[in-house]
Amino acid sequence: MPTVDEITRKSLAALRAAGVPEPAARTQLSLLLEAELRGVPSHGLLRLPRVIQRIRNGVCKPNATGRGLWRREAFYEVDGENGLGPVVALSALEHVCVRAADTGVAVAAIRNCDHLGMLAWYAEQVARKGQILVALTISEALVHPWGGRRAMLGTNPITIGIPAQPDPFVFDMATSLVSMGKIHDHANRGVAIPEGWALNSEGYPTTDAAAAKQGAIAPFGGAKGYGLALGFELLVAALSGSAIGREVAGTLDSEQPCNKGDVFIVLEPTTGAAGMVSTFMQELRASPAADPRQPVRIPGDRARQARRDHLEVGIDLAPEVWEQIVEMAG
Amino acid sequence: MPTVDEITRKSLAALRAAGVPEPAARTQLSLLLEAELRGVPSHGLLRLPRVIQRIRNGVCKPNATGRGLWRREAFYEVDGENGLGPVVALSALEHVCVRAADTGVAVAAIRNCDHLGMLAWYAEQVARKGQILVALTISEALVHPWGGRRAMLGTNPITIGIPAQPDPFVFDMATSLVSMGKIHDHANRGVAIPEGWALNSEGYPTTDAAAAKQGAIAPFGGAKGYGLALGFELLVAALSGSAIGREVAGTLDSEQPCNKGDVFIVLEPTTGAAGMVSTFMQELRASPAADPRQPVRIPGDRARQARRDHLEVGIDLAPEVWEQIVEMAG
Repeated sequence: MPTVDEITRKSLAALRAAGVPEPAARTQLSLLLEAELRGVPSHGLLRLPRVIQRIRNGVCKPNATGRGLWRREAFYEVDGENGLGPVVALSALEHVCVRAADTGVAVAAIRNCDHLGMLAWYAEQVARKGQILVALTISEALVHPWGGRRAMLGTNPITIGIPAQPDPFVFDMATSLVSMGKIHDHANRGVAIPEGWALNSEGYPTTDAAAAKQGAIAPFGGAKGYGLALGFELLVAALSGSAIGREVAGTLDSEQPCNKGDVFIVLEPTTGAAGMVSTFMQELRASPAADPRQPVRIPGDRARQARRDHLEVGIDLAPEVWEQIVEMAG
Repeated sequence: MPTVDEITRKSLAALRAAGVPEPAARTQLSLLLEAELRGVPSHGLLRLPRVIQRIRNGVCKPNATGRGLWRREAFYEVDGENGLGPVVALSALEHVCVRAADTGVAVAAIRNCDHLGMLAWYAEQVARKGQILVALTISEALVHPWGGRRAMLGTNPITIGIPAQPDPFVFDMATSLVSMGKIHDHANRGVAIPEGWALNSEGYPTTDAAAAKQGAIAPFGGAKGYGLALGFELLVAALSGSAIGREVAGTLDSEQPCNKGDVFIVLEPTTGAAGMVSTFMQELRASPAADPRQPVRIPGDRARQARRDHLEVGIDLAPEVWEQIVEMAG
């Protein structure tokens, strides 16, 4: 198993070989590595070969940082110029955080940049500096409407980051019942998926993971989850002017420019909010648990524990991912 | 069955008799009536007797409209002065909509006002005038954490309103699996509730609706719904400085001042957004349905149909609610 240091060296070399400038390479890698550390390998180094392939194919421009414009005083509109997701997004976020400190709230609406990766990475950074972040992004259509048979919506995550001690509250979820990554994982292992997860390409329920890959994932929580996924999709597109629904491309393939949108809303908490939030999270953790051996958890608790563990014992990177990275490092 | 005209006359008389000024009475009634029309009786006239009882008990002040302060340029902080929910909230919303037209986004964070009622009412108004509304509010603790046994969180709804033609997109949902109103309804009819809906006062799963009334409702969508409910609770409290968790009071009783918080985020859509949103909603409705007799629906479609039907045939008001209103009208 390669150490985090070895992974870092090879990954940076691979990004450099693809023409990514040093600071951008470090930003992109830091995002993917953080996902591995937090136990979200679907958003981890698995994605690095695709990032590089997209650059090689000319659909992602590693030198772009995005062209921003204050459309209104608290509304920052960004054309990502097909840049790397975390590079464009972090740059936008910096502008918006400064402005929100002044105006109390500010928004960045981004279009035309590559995949943002794990949104918790952004929320953690903003919340550690004392501001609230609500982040939304959309993806190509993978999720069927409640009562529908065709993939029409992205997996449309929402992330909420709120300052607290010792660690911020960071909640990060997709509005799909499961990730397409999980379905691919079942297909790779030749294991059936549970009923209710997905439809096949004809729009009928299936437990065959390979068939589900060509079909559509269910929204989480039935009709409500569908409504949320749709609400977020419309919100992001209406604010950013991005593509929507089945016209979204470039979040999963290596051939097409990425035309989805992303939205960051940064807000100033009221005085004393961090203390109040911290106290309430402790009350929740101390409240009676259904299973006494499993105390009530706060979203982010598990990810933070995983981070500590992985820093100690290292990352369990899939061998084929490591091989690809080594090969791309040249 | 009383006509909408009769209901309006008696309800206004009841509000007037309690000392509510004419415009405030009309605002409060319009909110409750709209919930009846949209087929959400849990947020309808059923609530009028409690509104009046709260005024009689001195915990709600019918003359208050809230004291607002621009804490920052795009952040409006409101002390509701124990005023009527829709009166304080609409007043705040007017300020924030004007400001958002200038700044691109603006927020109202409200504390100390009574129940806001059906949030879709606000979203519909904002979206019809061409702006986007994201509205959040919290309630007293009725929902247990995922893996927990005690009610620690409100039913914490989110509402998203986005301009479109011919009607805006309005999505309005609670983060609880069901409403406490639905559990009361089962208890009143002596019918069992399905497994998984609720816990009893000891924190154990129950199908006895009467026992569930004293217990806790499940979050919708499992761990994700819990995360959302918690995220919204923290967000509202961190922005408004309201009470949180089990300290929230006055949303369901007639004796305590209401100390929950409410948050409105108003945003300016990008050029052409309404057309794009309308087109995509049509694509969704036309997409293949799981059951060909049940076309894919957009959140709000059913409410709008119910509204048309009720305007034609009238509201089916529960006789005991009507009797109370008539009695209160004096």
